[in-house]
Amino acid sequence: MWALGCHRQAPATADSDIATYHQAAARIAEATRTGRAAHRRVADLTDLFGPRMTGSPALERAIVWAHDAFVADGQENATLDPVRVPIWQRGKESADIVKPALRRLAVLGLGGSVGTPPGGLTAEVAVVSSFDELKKAGPGLRGKIVLFDRPWPTDVPNAAAAYGQTIDYRTEGATRAAAYGAVAALVRSLASTSLGAPHTGQMHYGPGPQIPTAALSVEDAELVARLVARGPVTLNLVLEDGPRPEAPSFNVLAELRGRERPEEIVVIGAHLDSWDVGEGAQDDGAGVAIVMESLATLRRLGLRPRRTIRAVLYTSEEEGAQGGKAYAQAHAAELGRHVAAFETDVGAGTPLGFRIDAAPAAVADLRGLIALLAPLGATLVDAGFAGADISGLRPAGVPLLGLFADPAHYFDVHHSVADTLEKIDPAALGRDVAAMATMAYVVADRPTRWPVSPPPPPEHKP
Amino acid sequence: MWALGCHRQAPATADSDIATYHQAAARIAEATRTGRAAHRRVADLTDLFGPRMTGSPALERAIVWAHDAFVADGQENATLDPVRVPIWQRGKESADIVKPALRRLAVLGLGGSVGTPPGGLTAEVAVVSSFDELKKAGPGLRGKIVLFDRPWPTDVPNAAAAYGQTIDYRTEGATRAAAYGAVAALVRSLASTSLGAPHTGQMHYGPGPQIPTAALSVEDAELVARLVARGPVTLNLVLEDGPRPEAPSFNVLAELRGRERPEEIVVIGAHLDSWDVGEGAQDDGAGVAIVMESLATLRRLGLRPRRTIRAVLYTSEEEGAQGGKAYAQAHAAELGRHVAAFETDVGAGTPLGFRIDAAPAAVADLRGLIALLAPLGATLVDAGFAGADISGLRPAGVPLLGLFADPAHYFDVHHSVADTLEKIDPAALGRDVAAMATMAYVVADRPTRWPVSPPPPPEHKP
Repeated sequence: MWALGCHRQAPATADSDIATYHQAAARIAEATRTGRAAHRRVADLTDLFGPRMTGSPALERAIVWAHDAFVADGQENATLDPVRVPIWQRGKESADIVKPALRRLAVLGLGGSVGTPPGGLTAEVAVVSSFDELKKAGPGLRGKIVLFDRPWPTDVPNAAAAYGQTIDYRTEGATRAAAYGAVAALVRSLASTSLGAPHTGQMHYGPGPQIPTAALSVEDAELVARLVARGPVTLNLVLEDGPRPEAPSFNVLAELRGRERPEEIVVIGAHLDSWDVGEGAQDDGAGVAIVMESLATLRRLGLRPRRTIRAVLYTSEEEGAQGGKAYAQAHAAELGRHVAAFETDVGAGTPLGFRIDAAPAAVADLRGLIALLAPLGATLVDAGFAGADISGLRPAGVPLLGLFADPAHYFDVHHSVADTLEKIDPAALGRDVAAMATMAYVVADRPTRWPVSPPPPPEHKP
Repeated sequence: MWALGCHRQAPATADSDIATYHQAAARIAEATRTGRAAHRRVADLTDLFGPRMTGSPALERAIVWAHDAFVADGQENATLDPVRVPIWQRGKESADIVKPALRRLAVLGLGGSVGTPPGGLTAEVAVVSSFDELKKAGPGLRGKIVLFDRPWPTDVPNAAAAYGQTIDYRTEGATRAAAYGAVAALVRSLASTSLGAPHTGQMHYGPGPQIPTAALSVEDAELVARLVARGPVTLNLVLEDGPRPEAPSFNVLAELRGRERPEEIVVIGAHLDSWDVGEGAQDDGAGVAIVMESLATLRRLGLRPRRTIRAVLYTSEEEGAQGGKAYAQAHAAELGRHVAAFETDVGAGTPLGFRIDAAPAAVADLRGLIALLAPLGATLVDAGFAGADISGLRPAGVPLLGLFADPAHYFDVHHSVADTLEKIDPAALGRDVAAMATMAYVVADRPTRWPVSPPPPPEHKP
């Protein structure tokens, strides 16, 4: 039995909640079974707007669309929350082996990268497969292009863990290579399988010189590594990329107001923006649909909870959770009344359960409560990182939960041209909606609420 | 018991041959078990030369490399057979939806296509999923771009059959659409799975107007079809592609001369050329390695057969089996002494057995003989199309055999940027070598030979 937080209420066991909410869970599951309604939302978002990069007209139009859809669904307090977002623009890009023989590679600049000088830069390639190898090679890297040929790990519990173990090569590779005098950094795409497409993603410069950086397809990273093993390889890299002035954007909010304690809030969220390749179907069109359809389903079924459920569709997640940070800032005054924050940003695989970043008592309670999702097969409770956009709520002690959809194929398409609508299975998406709607409803409706989290330990890796 | 052909020899049952060759088969399998030697050959071919399109310097250099490798292996009669080949060149290509909203598509011109007018052509898209639908839509197609959105069939025995059922949309789509006044033809890529890459391939014009034609990625074909279902879609297509003057090229030949009847020949062949995307690892670098390593293995093991085994590495297969046709013409005088012709051109999947296009008696005999490959699991005998390059030998009645490697993943990468070295499993490739070397050796060595085929029935689909 866990101690309650700051609210003076009688403790309730997860067991009694399961009895209370069993029927609501079954009704939600039946209403979302085909996934057709949610799928139609992803189809509209991807077909009508395509890729929705921060700063693009397509994202602006998608923001208006989302607001209008909330209104059409009859949701309350549909709102646009202003956010200043950083703009990064992709220009002409190419990577060509020029020695020993001309060979064009599949390349995609990383978000945040500076551009190459006019005409690009030409240098010999050095290949390392780890930061340890980088350190050993250190003095020999001056003036070179460093390729981080870090294979996708397979000796991990799941693909999300594999991503967590390799993401630093994308985000920090440039800064680490620059420290040894490298003139550019390439990274093998973070991908669980590959058919030739490079995968982009955000990078961040630390202190020190800023060098251009890009992803090669898995195939071409392996090719370059093999060729370097045969002899010197010279590469010409052109990235007409770079930052542009900040611009205005918006988070989109809407509510299913609580019937008893409307001032207490359960957030369910996903991000509207995407990268500029593919159409952001799995990342995170699926999440947008899950959030919208969760709220719509509860309203249709007349399941108005005790507290308010607030849907938040964030802008500019890909550039470093800009929308999430802005939400935390704009709503700082009401964070003490945030009972929980849910996020869904790992695609539309079948739901496995939830990841939770909260006090141990909340984790333990969720392990009981999750039995409500047994009919969906979504009973996993994994303590850990719950989502990028809600991580801004962590310092306020808000319990954070991430819908954990099976990530087995998510990183096949993630941040690549292959992230497209037809990868989404409507039935799995429907179960995701059921899992999210059920959990959000129960957490918003049950008499008790979780304690606020203890002060955060060091940040988890995504 | 099958009747012998024109040669007066005592009939031999497959059973007695199995006893005779059991040990040789085991030695070959052991010698090729790791596949490392064959894999090194594919790696050299792909790493050193990359894509080897007909007309490219890379193909010329690969031809010289192959000749030199035969010489280095100690093969006899290493020869370059001149072939005149048609040249087709890819220039700048793009396909953009311009209405209802700008959207860049993944496109790849089809080999043989004419180019678009300067600046490209812009027209409304009509989508059909079959030639029947094309016919029904006929009068409405004037001035339009026709998209053949033909899904990859899954209700077929294997991926090779799926390719056979869809290839006409690629090869004939332009001519059929032009008959109704269409200005261009697009085809959904023929692919068993897709992560955003279009798949090219050869097309052929029939009588009538010649319109430009290209493949869209599976994702983008589905996107266009969905958008057209929502309302009119206008597309701008630029294909700066087209035919160029013929050029000289070469087939590369080498022999393991027969010890008793060297004038009788068993051909084993594959093609050296590839498309200009990817690096032709599965198509058909794998085949080249299988052929070279089969001959090398037999020589190393001292397995000199009664008849000659002739390796033939064809040029310009992708443009319509130009090398194969040239071989049949140049060697017309000795085709009566061709005991069999093997081809390997479905990649490096694990060997399942052989496809055979020959007289029924030969097919029946092979069904017995194939037991020699039971330790490899390669006991399938499938009567049907055996290979494009050897089909020129069909009118002469030469029994034709195609190594049937498991095609389950071949069409994931076929004719696309994803056809790269790391898709090849060395161990499976080694078993392919074992299957090819064993069968070629037995057919070249056994006392009897198969009858010449009866006159050919209508040509099989590849």
